Formats: sequence, C-alpha cells, structure tokens
Amino acid sequence: MASGRTHHLDASVVHHRWDNALAPRLVIDAGDTVVFETRDAADGFYHRGSGHDQVLQRVPKGHPLTGPVKIRDAQPGDVLVVEILEVAPRGDFAWSNIRPGRGLLPQAEFDRPYLQVWDLSDGRHARGMRDIAVPLAPFPGVMGTALPEPGSHVTAPPRRNGGNMDIRQLTAGTTLYLPVLVEGALFSIGDGHGAQGDGEVCITAVEMNARATLRFGLLSARHLPEPQFRMPRRAARACELGPQYVTTGHGPDLHECARQAVRHMIDHLVRERGLTREQAYILCSVAVDLRVSEIVDAPNWIVSAFLPEDVFTGG
Amino acid sequence: MASGRTHHLDASVVHHRWDNALAPRLVIDAGDTVVFETRDAADGFYHRGSGHDQVLQRVPKGHPLTGPVKIRDAQPGDVLVVEILEVAPRGDFAWSNIRPGRGLLPQAEFDRPYLQVWDLSDGRHARGMRDIAVPLAPFPGVMGTALPEPGSHVTAPPRRNGGNMDIRQLTAGTTLYLPVLVEGALFSIGDGHGAQGDGEVCITAVEMNARATLRFGLLSARHLPEPQFRMPRRAARACELGPQYVTTGHGPDLHECARQAVRHMIDHLVRERGLTREQAYILCSVAVDLRVSEIVDAPNWIVSAFLPEDVFTGG
Repeated sequence: MASGRTHHLDASVVHHRWDNALAPRLVIDAGDTVVFETRDAADGFYHRGSGHDQVLQRVPKGHPLTGPVKIRDAQPGDVLVVEILEVAPRGDFAWSNIRPGRGLLPQAEFDRPYLQVWDLSDGRHARGMRDIAVPLAPFPGVMGTALPEPGSHVTAPPRRNGGNMDIRQLTAGTTLYLPVLVEGALFSIGDGHGAQGDGEVCITAVEMNARATLRFGLLSARHLPEPQFRMPRRAARACELGPQYVTTGHGPDLHECARQAVRHMIDHLVRERGLTREQAYILCSVAVDLRVSEIVDAPNWIVSAFLPEDVFTGG
Repeated sequence: MASGRTHHLDASVVHHRWDNALAPRLVIDAGDTVVFETRDAADGFYHRGSGHDQVLQRVPKGHPLTGPVKIRDAQPGDVLVVEILEVAPRGDFAWSNIRPGRGLLPQAEFDRPYLQVWDLSDGRHARGMRDIAVPLAPFPGVMGTALPEPGSHVTAPPRRNGGNMDIRQLTAGTTLYLPVLVEGALFSIGDGHGAQGDGEVCITAVEMNARATLRFGLLSARHLPEPQFRMPRRAARACELGPQYVTTGHGPDLHECARQAVRHMIDHLVRERGLTREQAYILCSVAVDLRVSEIVDAPNWIVSAFLPEDVFTGG
C-alpha cells in the first residue's frame, strides 16, 4: 500500500462545471491521501425548516464540486486509482426532492414539487419519513477527472471521465478506476449521498454535505474506456439480507420496463404501507434497487425493483 | 400456513407452448403442494460428451414445460401464490451455450457456436470452466399461468402471466405472485437453472433437469398487473458478500449501456483472468449481475456489471 502525505481540501471554494482550464486547488503525488469536504447538491439552499414550495424556487446551477486536485505525473492514457477510505455526512441534515419533469417518471405522474427532510442524527440511518429508517451507506455521487474537450461542461450527466455517476456501491472500501484524460488528471468530487437505491429514480438521493477521504494512485499502460471499480469482501449488511419485496416490469423497451417496475412499487407502497405517492417515489429513489433480471428473452425484457423491507421499523 | 396434500408430477409429458386449451395433468386445491420434475431447456439434446458443433444442430422448439396444473376455484382476477419450497438439480449434468445472433451481444461479436458442459456433482457448484466454481442457487426459469388469449403462444418471452421470466431470485424461500388469467390458473413450470446472473446475457444459464417443490395458494381482490415476489430474510451467501469487480456502461440508451458494461466485463475476464471470449461471455451469463446504477442523469444512464470474484477458486 502506498504511504504518502495527507492533505485537506475544504469546501470554501467550489466549481459548478467540468473545465480543464480550472487552476488546481491542490497538487499531490500518487500515494497521497486527501480529505475532501463537499457541499450538498443544492449548495446549501435547503434547511431543516424548508418546505415543498422552495423546490421550484431553487435554480439548479450544477453540482458544487471540490477540486480540482492535480496528480503529479498523471498523463492521458493512465488510470487514476481512487481508494475510497471513508465517506461520512457533515452534519445531521439531508434532503430529497421531487422536481416535476425530472427523474424517471414524467411530469404527468408527479406534477407537484415535494421536499423530504431527513435527520441523520443517530449516525446510522436517515429518518423523517413515517416509521422508516434508511440505513446510511454514504458515497460521493460525483467523482471525476477533467474532460479533454475544452470549455465548460455541465455536471449532470456522467461521462467517460466519471462525473455524476451516482453509483451507490462507491462507498468506503471500494477502489474506483478512472481514465486520466488530461495531464494531471484534475480530480473533483461532490454530491454526497447518505443512501441511494440502484437507479436513483426520482433523481435525488439522501443529499448531504459530506467528508470523503480518498487515496490516489496511478496505473499506466492499462486501457480503461469507462470507469470501473472493485468492491472488497464485505460484512453482511442486515438490510441487504433482510426480506425484499420485488415488483417486475416486462416489455420490449428496457427503459419503460424500469418505469413500470417503479410504478408497481409505488402502488405497492401506497396500498400496503400507506405512504403517499410522493413518499413512495422518494423511498424508491433512496432505497429501492433496479436490477436487469433478463435482457435476452426477445421481445420482452424484465427490470425488477427490490425494496428492502427492513427499512420499515414499525414491523 | 396452509397444510394440504402433496402431489407429484413427473416430466414424462411436457408441452412446448402456452395454450389455455391444454387439459390439466393435475387438479389441486389451494393449500396443496406439488413436487414437479422438469426437463432442461434443450429437452435432453445435450449430453456430457456433446461439443460445440451440436449447438446449431439443435432445433429450438420451445421450453418443455411440466403441467398444466389446475387450481380449483382459481378465477381470473385472483392472484396465484406460489411458495417456492425447494429447487434442486436432477442429476449432475448441466450446460450453457452461445448461439450466434441470440443473446445480448450481436452475431458480429460472437459468430461461432459454443457449448459449455458443467458438472454439478459436488452438490454446491457448477464446475467445468477452468478453475471456476459457480455457486448453485437453483430456480425455475419458467413459471407461469395460462394466457387468456386463445391459441398457442411461444414460451420464449415472459408476459404478464410470468412464463420465461429468468429471474434468478426465484429460489427456495421466495414467494411468487402470479396473475390468474383463466379459470383454474393452469400453472406450468420448466427451464431449471442451477445458477444465473441478473441479465442472463448469453441467453443460457446453468441449464439442467430439475425438481421443484411448490405450495400453491390463492388471494382474491388484489390487483396484480405483472408478477411480483417476496424474498425472505436470508443467510449471507459468501459469494455475494465476497469481492466484486464492476464494469460500467454509460450513454443515452439503457440497452446499449448494458451491452457496453458486458463488453467491458468480457474484456476484463480475457485480459485479467485469461478466459477465452466465449468462456467470458458464458461466465457473464451465469454469474455476473446487471444493475441499473442510475437512470435519471440525462442524457446518460449507467448500467453496471458485477462479477463475484470468489467464483475463481484458484485465487
């Protein structure tokens, strides 16, 4: 294991676009560790007392990212190795929202803005929706290197540089491999998520200020067309091994299969658990996992949505 | 828990189409249990000594299904509850194949037929590819009720009646809910899989003769548009909790994202593990899981492919 220096980078300065002309805030060597502070995706717009009305007042301006960090000797064609040592909330406040017209389900199905405030103060769960406790499994929604194309690029879509991947398994213990596309790699990070399901269907997770400790390394002469990662052996997480209720959506369009499975899960949560439709959609986004069950039995594929029932603490 | 009679239905007679005019082989009451024997998807075509050349000699004629079983009092609009009590291989032989032009990747990428023979004789793994041991987690690829539409319907695609769902979590302990679409439900089963990844990307799993023990129940007055299921609390499975190597595919088409993630995984298995491309594709089909990581960060979605590295017993 490389042992290097440890640096700290606070969130006092952020950038809201990918741009390889940005000056690095920090220059490190391969083997070094950086403790990053990051701002939540809404850049502090919401507070514990915020309400549904504020959702549409917010003007999205791109994820506030902490960085860039230049890694000495990193060259285009190298692979940036990012060991995720620790990710934690900063503070005990988090939020999710529904913004009509964004997310997996169309505006016709969710036409009102909705804000869910979460409390993280027990250190292990997000609470604030009925009797539900969503186990925390914090990760950065955004980690990426600078793009080689000049100019400024919005942060919303993930690209070959990583970026807004929203891959929930990028938690502590996982090692992420990112393509180096410009000299020095120029790594940035943001968009802390306390918990998320595979899919992030309403487009927000348990959104929070975060602290992430990452150790950086370099590999050369290894072709890496898109981000890849390795997860270590894990301790069993109770929630993952607990009972799961699963809905399925089948049909010839994989995207529509996913929509259908999520619609069925929302119906299930409303009917069987008494959630409102908005609560159900947000719970799907923060806790329900979308799997591609089969993608070969032409003409119908199946996407399944897995709800870990242990999130309901009321039994 | 309902306690009823236990019936046995062997695989001496099978049907290869869904057809609600088929006479039931067995009539049972809700609460009864049936021990089914099923034939493999190729209906006994392959044997331990079979080779690649035989793949194209096989004329697919639809999955051989054991049934139908009529459940007394089942009415259209009811839900058929199928408790999966036990699923096991019959015998120690199984197979997977690549049939060019079928499966997730096109003929241009896999243009030669390929047969993988598996040995199940240790009772816990499928062995036969290098140092690989794929943990058995047997389930029926096909479980379904009869369709209400008259005539005969091919078995390949899953539909709202269930059918060829190929959902790998339908293992012992899981309870499946299927819509009843015709009087008596007319349940059939087949296509035993010893192991499969989410996606079943090369269109075959660890294909085998099987025995499945199912207990049937009925629910009325519950809307069920498509199959759903509940998984119980599980013991941790070593392989699931072991290290995972993960590739990602991003882009505006979810189906193509899945293809890309699988292509990257095949490249990884060839480069890092020394498999042939055909071995790698089959290993993806029987052991690699496709998850929808995010489906909201327009215009790019991410599908990730998870390889449980513990399948490599050589370390």
